[in-house]
Amino acid sequence: MTWRQRAQGLGKVVVGVSAVTGALVAIYLQKKSPEDRIAATSWTTNFKPSIIWDSNWDKREPDSLVKVSKDNPDPKQQKDYENLVMKNTPKATRHLILIRHGNYNLDGETDQMRYLTKLGREQAELTGLRLQALNKQYLKLVSSTMTRAVETADIILKSLPKDLPVERSDLLREGAPIPPEPPLGSWRPEKQQFFEDGARIEAAFRHYFHRASPDQTTDSYEIIVCHANVIRYFVCRALQFPPEGWLRMSLNHGSITWVTIRPSGRVVLRALGEAGFMPPAKISSM
Amino acid sequence: MTWRQRAQGLGKVVVGVSAVTGALVAIYLQKKSPEDRIAATSWTTNFKPSIIWDSNWDKREPDSLVKVSKDNPDPKQQKDYENLVMKNTPKATRHLILIRHGNYNLDGETDQMRYLTKLGREQAELTGLRLQALNKQYLKLVSSTMTRAVETADIILKSLPKDLPVERSDLLREGAPIPPEPPLGSWRPEKQQFFEDGARIEAAFRHYFHRASPDQTTDSYEIIVCHANVIRYFVCRALQFPPEGWLRMSLNHGSITWVTIRPSGRVVLRALGEAGFMPPAKISSM
Repeated sequence: MTWRQRAQGLGKVVVGVSAVTGALVAIYLQKKSPEDRIAATSWTTNFKPSIIWDSNWDKREPDSLVKVSKDNPDPKQQKDYENLVMKNTPKATRHLILIRHGNYNLDGETDQMRYLTKLGREQAELTGLRLQALNKQYLKLVSSTMTRAVETADIILKSLPKDLPVERSDLLREGAPIPPEPPLGSWRPEKQQFFEDGARIEAAFRHYFHRASPDQTTDSYEIIVCHANVIRYFVCRALQFPPEGWLRMSLNHGSITWVTIRPSGRVVLRALGEAGFMPPAKISSM
Repeated sequence: MTWRQRAQGLGKVVVGVSAVTGALVAIYLQKKSPEDRIAATSWTTNFKPSIIWDSNWDKREPDSLVKVSKDNPDPKQQKDYENLVMKNTPKATRHLILIRHGNYNLDGETDQMRYLTKLGREQAELTGLRLQALNKQYLKLVSSTMTRAVETADIILKSLPKDLPVERSDLLREGAPIPPEPPLGSWRPEKQQFFEDGARIEAAFRHYFHRASPDQTTDSYEIIVCHANVIRYFVCRALQFPPEGWLRMSLNHGSITWVTIRPSGRVVLRALGEAGFMPPAKISSM
């Protein structure tokens, strides 16, 4: 049962009570749904997964897009159904290569003043060279519109083909995606900030993270240059891990986080916070 | 509430029922605990975390180790209590550097025949050089007793100080930690394999993953050379993410996965599957 399904399930527990006249009774209730019988440890024999993968997480499961009934006994309609499902079935894999911007001027009070430091520019250059060495047919590069992300993207682009399409998006700007669990003492944004940023970063997730469209014929590699909170939230959401756990991860500046989305909608995290292509002296995270 | 706490909580829901004579009544029950009111999406205003961090996950929370009551009004006893808690409070950070073995002979039928390939030996050498470049005061290196892990460890050791303590452990051998969710069509071990390996890999987690002991005075770096399934299960368990999600990650051969455990018991994943220190031509995962 996912955290989402659990929430929907609340208030649906029906209890049959054999009553005793005029008395208040306290009973121990055991929930009846098999989904609720969760193994106390991973290695007991009565294993039930505590979190079921939602295969239609991006609302692009082929048979969820097809209107004709698959139970229709008419062979002609049945054939139509199968053809439509086939037509809506993705064939290609999408690779999303998420890059955190480089080290920047923490003393800046405005976004414009939070430009990359010398170290940050060096990091971005190393990241660009690594992407070049990986030698993939990149489809495009998208960056957040914040100064440090734009600067990082522009340095990376020097190492990539001149005709690579470039996009900027406000959806990818840094923010407070969701109150972290456990909370962090030193980082307590206002509730209104989570309220505003949270929906925007979730919107970014839904925009960029989905299986390939059925007409995509070859695997694609897209570079997304953005921010630590945004990337960590994306990773939790993509893996269907509880998103409030995002602060249990940390990302180095200029690091590569690689998420692969298969045609089936399955998601695999292939690297998180990879900065091994930088000499240790060039690594920073704060 | 973690998956573990949820499981422990089952059967503990006490319901006060105002009874009706001789009747069977069906009531809709709404659980009263605020922990159970879970937000359906991360960005709604009624946010409650779906998974609460268990700060005593390693059973080493200082005040859980102290017997004297903190509610005792006697000032002498109160002072004793505070001293005992202080004495049991860790001060140092533990870094666990998890290394996957190198590429190996997949055609081998016995463990001995599943030795490193030429590529696998090159990967291990690159990993060793990276650990050397990171230049930490490593406390020790532990490896699984399987051939490919021992070989990888021995190659890595050539780049590390001669007097570094080395351990081998059967607990770290590759296996089937827990049935993955979603299941993988091509990988369906026997139930008995999960039954046997699952407890052993969980035992390995409990042995190696915990906050520093109170008498550890400086931060420590330990290298653990083992296997992809074992490392991915460790990461899920350490981050308190559902362990059946372990196959949502993938690890390159010779890659570094870095987990930091703070004195407070907080855990941070600083890198997963990092192989950026290898030229792209040397990277493999299968």
